Amino acid sequence: MQQYVRKNIQEMTGYTPGEQPQAGKFVKLNTNENPYPPSPAVGRAIREVLERGLSRYPDPTATAFRIRAAEVLAVEPDWILCGNGSDDILTIVTRAFIAEGQTLRSAYPSYILYRTLAEIQGATFESMPFHPDWSLPASFADMRDDVRLAVLVNPNSPSGTMVPPDVVATLAARLNCPLLVDEAYADFADTNCLPIVRQHPNVMVVRTMSKSYALAGLRFGFLVAQPTVIQQLLKVKDSYNCDALSIAGATAAIDDQPWLQDNRSKILATRDRLTESLQSMGFAVQPSQANFVWCQHADQPSRPLYEALKAQRVLVRYMDYPDWGDGLRITVGTDEQTDALLAILQSILK
Amino acid sequence: MQQYVRKNIQEMTGYTPGEQPQAGKFVKLNTNENPYPPSPAVGRAIREVLERGLSRYPDPTATAFRIRAAEVLAVEPDWILCGNGSDDILTIVTRAFIAEGQTLRSAYPSYILYRTLAEIQGATFESMPFHPDWSLPASFADMRDDVRLAVLVNPNSPSGTMVPPDVVATLAARLNCPLLVDEAYADFADTNCLPIVRQHPNVMVVRTMSKSYALAGLRFGFLVAQPTVIQQLLKVKDSYNCDALSIAGATAAIDDQPWLQDNRSKILATRDRLTESLQSMGFAVQPSQANFVWCQHADQPSRPLYEALKAQRVLVRYMDYPDWGDGLRITVGTDEQTDALLAILQSILK
Repeated sequence: MQQYVRKNIQEMTGYTPGEQPQAGKFVKLNTNENPYPPSPAVGRAIREVLERGLSRYPDPTATAFRIRAAEVLAVEPDWILCGNGSDDILTIVTRAFIAEGQTLRSAYPSYILYRTLAEIQGATFESMPFHPDWSLPASFADMRDDVRLAVLVNPNSPSGTMVPPDVVATLAARLNCPLLVDEAYADFADTNCLPIVRQHPNVMVVRTMSKSYALAGLRFGFLVAQPTVIQQLLKVKDSYNCDALSIAGATAAIDDQPWLQDNRSKILATRDRLTESLQSMGFAVQPSQANFVWCQHADQPSRPLYEALKAQRVLVRYMDYPDWGDGLRITVGTDEQTDALLAILQSILK
Repeated sequence: MQQYVRKNIQEMTGYTPGEQPQAGKFVKLNTNENPYPPSPAVGRAIREVLERGLSRYPDPTATAFRIRAAEVLAVEPDWILCGNGSDDILTIVTRAFIAEGQTLRSAYPSYILYRTLAEIQGATFESMPFHPDWSLPASFADMRDDVRLAVLVNPNSPSGTMVPPDVVATLAARLNCPLLVDEAYADFADTNCLPIVRQHPNVMVVRTMSKSYALAGLRFGFLVAQPTVIQQLLKVKDSYNCDALSIAGATAAIDDQPWLQDNRSKILATRDRLTESLQSMGFAVQPSQANFVWCQHADQPSRPLYEALKAQRVLVRYMDYPDWGDGLRITVGTDEQTDALLAILQSILK
């Protein structure tokens, strides 16, 4: 039966997400989840849907969310496409733009899921190395006919760094293909690329409710792009890709902007403290615009540190990028989680 | 920007699901939803997840569901792939097996979404007409190299008829490609094709919780196939394709088999009454193995009947199949909904 599977699928290994231990107590700082519970309005909205019932199909385009999000983001509802997590949006976008044998371009090191998405399409994944200061090479916008989608994770993972929106706009103007800006972490940054979407029809911005809205368990993400693009992408998505509970929960979450601002302030304060503490322990820490930091210790290799932390039930993400190097990506947790991490690191490094 | 979209996507019109009026009061008998609320265990399970919180990513493979479903269906958990509705499963399967220029084969008339799924892949959709008695032509299993997936909706929509499992097994043995049996309505039928999966490694059975478990709003479906197939399909699915609430709700639903049997009995009793009443009004009604019936009136064309019903706020599905004909597909509702439908039909036909 395996022989019937497309060769590109047979040959790929598949994306491995960060560990999600379903049992046992971990200080979990490996997949950039928000350490705080979401806005209480989320649970209320979901309970209301439960009262109304689940036997009917949900709204195919999550209209309630799009109306509220459009107000918050200063766009129109028909500029928004909703998805079952931003993963669903990334899948829709790659299916719409990339055929077999074409190329998806990304920066390196960055979010490795894009390689998998290209492989599923039978496409080539091309990664352009960042400069040592995490700025993009100008060649990122050099065009070839086979390049049909460029992706920029901004702020980037694992680095937490950002390419400034004016630089992104310049790249977009030079690119003769769509540019997807993955803003999973933008709510923790000083700026973002949403304003560029209006001036550059080839720019699309994808956001998730998983990180800044503390809703990783709900699966809700969205794309902001010009309406002619959204119309095409709607043809590719599954008919009812967002369920009734997640639509209600996500709408309540984006409606609660005071919660977002308060949560953001807490994360950013802890991020500063985490950065300084790691530096004082001998880590090189990249200044972060996200809810994680990327670091390497001056003397200690990263993998044994990851393993020693895991043995003491602290999970961080060990990342090893061929031809580039490795390091630890540590999610900004609560103050208590951060204290626990730092104390254990301290004892490991002694 | 549109010019960057793949030509096959640009040229397709996209699938239009049945009308889902978000406002106004309709007797809604057009998209085969279950007219009853789901098992009360579903709401309890979802409220428990809300208590635990939504800020963590869900289990990537919905293990809790797979364990319970495996017991109910007499398979092993690694024979099950869970999806965000069966739509997600259909998307994963088409992406795994069908490349550009290849062919997806289906019967005709049947579920028209499969044409869209083929078009998104840049593949050809081939539909083989049912015989007038809704049996399959033997040519359904005639092989060509380009045919990479055969799909059989069983019970079929719109007809509600079924190809017997022993016939499906014979087809599977002749087919030199995977055979996906879409059993969205199997819980309302006298039999099903699950036992075939063990004997024929190229057979996959897809089920949904939307119809028989009254959970269309939750988006949960699953595939039963041999583990070597599941392993390949896992590489294609989004990492966290099922959210924490739907995993808990679906697990509670499949755990409540007494609810399913009770619900099924009610639907089947109403289906019998609906069938007889329509026949007594002059409709030709196909004996149904699903939660809907397919009918045409002896004297009255179908479209004006659909429109007259809609004007009186009863929604049924009008289907028109080129080179085949049209008809009404009417979902089995509650007894009250069925009475309302029949009374209005009576007055229209007078």
